[in-house]
Amino acid sequence: MLEALKMQVYKANMELPRRGLITYTWGNVSGIDRATNYVVIKPSGVDYELLKPDDMVIIDLKGNKIEGKYKPSSDTPTHLELYKAFPEIGGVVHTHSPWATSWAQAGRSIPCYGTTHADYFYGSIPCARSLTQDEIENDYEKNTGLVIIETFKGLNASFVPGVLCINHGPFTWGKDAMEAVHNAVVLEEVAKMAFQTEQINVHVKPAPEAIKEKHFMRKHGKNAYYGQ
Amino acid sequence: MLEALKMQVYKANMELPRRGLITYTWGNVSGIDRATNYVVIKPSGVDYELLKPDDMVIIDLKGNKIEGKYKPSSDTPTHLELYKAFPEIGGVVHTHSPWATSWAQAGRSIPCYGTTHADYFYGSIPCARSLTQDEIENDYEKNTGLVIIETFKGLNASFVPGVLCINHGPFTWGKDAMEAVHNAVVLEEVAKMAFQTEQINVHVKPAPEAIKEKHFMRKHGKNAYYGQ
Amino acid sequence: MLEALKMQVYKANMELPRRGLITYTWGNVSGIDRATNYVVIKPSGVDYELLKPDDMVIIDLKGNKIEGKYKPSSDTPTHLELYKAFPEIGGVVHTHSPWATSWAQAGRSIPCYGTTHADYFYGSIPCARSLTQDEIENDYEKNTGLVIIETFKGLNASFVPGVLCINHGPFTWGKDAMEAVHNAVVLEEVAKMAFQTEQINVHVKPAPEAIKEKHFMRKHGKNAYYGQ
Amino acid sequence: MLEALKMQVYKANMELPRRGLITYTWGNVSGIDRATNYVVIKPSGVDYELLKPDDMVIIDLKGNKIEGKYKPSSDTPTHLELYKAFPEIGGVVHTHSPWATSWAQAGRSIPCYGTTHADYFYGSIPCARSLTQDEIENDYEKNTGLVIIETFKGLNASFVPGVLCINHGPFTWGKDAMEAVHNAVVLEEVAKMAFQTEQINVHVKPAPEAIKEKHFMRKHGKNAYYGQ
Repeated sequence: MLEALKMQVYKANMELPRRGLITYTWGNVSGIDRATNYVVIKPSGVDYELLKPDDMVIIDLKGNKIEGKYKPSSDTPTHLELYKAFPEIGGVVHTHSPWATSWAQAGRSIPCYGTTHADYFYGSIPCARSLTQDEIENDYEKNTGLVIIETFKGLNASFVPGVLCINHGPFTWGKDAMEAVHNAVVLEEVAKMAFQTEQINVHVKPAPEAIKEKHFMRKHGKNAYYGQ
Repeated sequence: MLEALKMQVYKANMELPRRGLITYTWGNVSGIDRATNYVVIKPSGVDYELLKPDDMVIIDLKGNKIEGKYKPSSDTPTHLELYKAFPEIGGVVHTHSPWATSWAQAGRSIPCYGTTHADYFYGSIPCARSLTQDEIENDYEKNTGLVIIETFKGLNASFVPGVLCINHGPFTWGKDAMEAVHNAVVLEEVAKMAFQTEQINVHVKPAPEAIKEKHFMRKHGKNAYYGQ
Repeated sequence: MLEALKMQVYKANMELPRRGLITYTWGNVSGIDRATNYVVIKPSGVDYELLKPDDMVIIDLKGNKIEGKYKPSSDTPTHLELYKAFPEIGGVVHTHSPWATSWAQAGRSIPCYGTTHADYFYGSIPCARSLTQDEIENDYEKNTGLVIIETFKGLNASFVPGVLCINHGPFTWGKDAMEAVHNAVVLEEVAKMAFQTEQINVHVKPAPEAIKEKHFMRKHGKNAYYGQ
Repeated sequence: MLEALKMQVYKANMELPRRGLITYTWGNVSGIDRATNYVVIKPSGVDYELLKPDDMVIIDLKGNKIEGKYKPSSDTPTHLELYKAFPEIGGVVHTHSPWATSWAQAGRSIPCYGTTHADYFYGSIPCARSLTQDEIENDYEKNTGLVIIETFKGLNASFVPGVLCINHGPFTWGKDAMEAVHNAVVLEEVAKMAFQTEQINVHVKPAPEAIKEKHFMRKHGKNAYYGQ
């Protein structure tokens, strides 16, 4: 079932080690089939070197397993909340990529310091609030999703395709699993350069609004002219 | 047409991922044939893993396409301004290489802290001023070129073969496309070491003038004695 | 003798260069057979590119050589003390991996700033006290082990599978040699991210207790649900 | 002539790119045959990817070419001064490796913060003084050697096998060309960790004298017991 999606989600997962985003099994990618609302996701704790397309797990939006010999990723409930809240997205990624995770551990949103950021993220990449003790102890992974959604009240998830979960790490998303991974790679690069930028100039200010507007819109706006 | 130049510009483009200067398609190299004033440049948004010599686009100095199945890089108007203003150059490179981009985002010129810098750049590598809102909204890429040229009033573009565009990233150039890439690699290394230098000694001063003079001139001066 | 363990300890040693934890011969892994209390360890100063399973040295807990053509690692007495003090461990690793070593040289324990840390280490990763001049001059390597053990008075070595030896570098351990290497890789990653976290936010506080509790216990507690 | 030495010096040169110490041609290794006092050194400005054993240049201690189709490295006069002043050394390396060069650009000696440093360098790795304008303008490369020698008045070049040339980069040496490269690799690693150490703890002090004594002497002293 959903063989093409399983293959795409598998390939998207394999991009994580290839792009240097993960150590061991510290990441997972999922994709959704909006016709059936079935979600394909990486199994929990399986070594990337052994992973096969057929190991992908299929679940519904309530988390019931539809197909698969393994347990789905333990972060599955977070993915499901994002799919329910953001109908425009088709893929979700979670990693502990070191630069984005360092910003998350520092509890800071990443300011937009330049065009690399503005080409993909329209404004700061927000850091979500801490979960309460109760939110951690009960339904922790589901609540992680709900706090992300709370963070995006008033934000456009298509314009800011990623978030930092405080003391944890990043989630990114996109129109499909591959684009979600692409955004995870960009976030890591942007997080690294924002760190370096602040060290080079402790008084640095975010880039002007006009730069943010120009660069995001020349790639993603109505009159986009970047790419083929 | 211009098959040899297309091959050189292709190879120069492929050096960018090989040297670790780019993520995805975040860079472009061009070369000019001064006999015809035709410019060969990478197409916009094409994956480096798929790029072929024949994908290179030929345009004239006004930006008219002469040959090629793809759209030229969206940064083409910047390249064209540089070729028009600096007749001594034959190749131009733009990247978002992380260290140089971090200095650009920080809005700071890179001071000359040592001989690695002085071997290639005669003095600071300047950071250009911000574009005005009007310059951003209209003919942004062309204005990016014009602001670089403004920055080089009183500077010798052959002696300082690169610049930082604030909140954006570096452009470098050289006598041909390959030398322009060489200078992009050097700039990235110099930017990294300048960062580290300032962290190791917050009171550090630029290298003495005599070091700058000696090292640049032993490689590039009339009586150069470095290399074969 | 102990061919399977020699092979495992060999493979665990070879993970050190593969995972980027060592330069030259700056590391060693051992494993213990609790039935015989024989310890298998890397020989001293042998190049990793030349290392073979048969080069592993077998010693008893008093340090007497049982089998092997080479001298055991000069850090052997430290390993032996750890095996004697922590009966629950089956493997020990020592490296000079750069991030963990930098924290050791700085003389600081690594605070728990997030879930990557909490997934493996239950609380700070402690930095042991300096050895006295007498402890350095006589039985230095054995005393290194004794000071680690002193550091773990009141700590659970299974819950905190690693330590920083001040001005020196990390030791990690696990249920066997491979898990000990796994923990060495995690420690290096955690040390790097803790560094970056503090640079991004100089006022950062450790992660809430509830995060530490949740993440460590969902992987290692009685009701663990992470992995297969 | 001196075919074995040419091969060794060639191999030692090829270690520089393999170990990540150089960009392009920014480094050179030499070795001396103490019977003839002939020095074998890399040619100037030849690409490492094209370098062959036969390209090595043979010169005498006055700098006269004895054999070779290329010009010797432009840093040759520095190497020659070191061979004349330190009769116990057999190989010399110069690189612009980024961490050591950053300390050199910062104008600071590298303090001994731990055992990695003390295993190879007995105390701080000194940063030489600036050359005077006259020393730069006349016989610059020879004077670079003389200032290194001045720096080592009262120091044992065998116990501290390397130096930082201010605003320039490191030189290291050893009993032969391969050991000199080994020390260049160690210096780079030590320089990186010293940087990180100071960032993690701005009040950090050098390691105790007893650690320096113990670690250097267990490898290099009369009663050394490290290695086979």
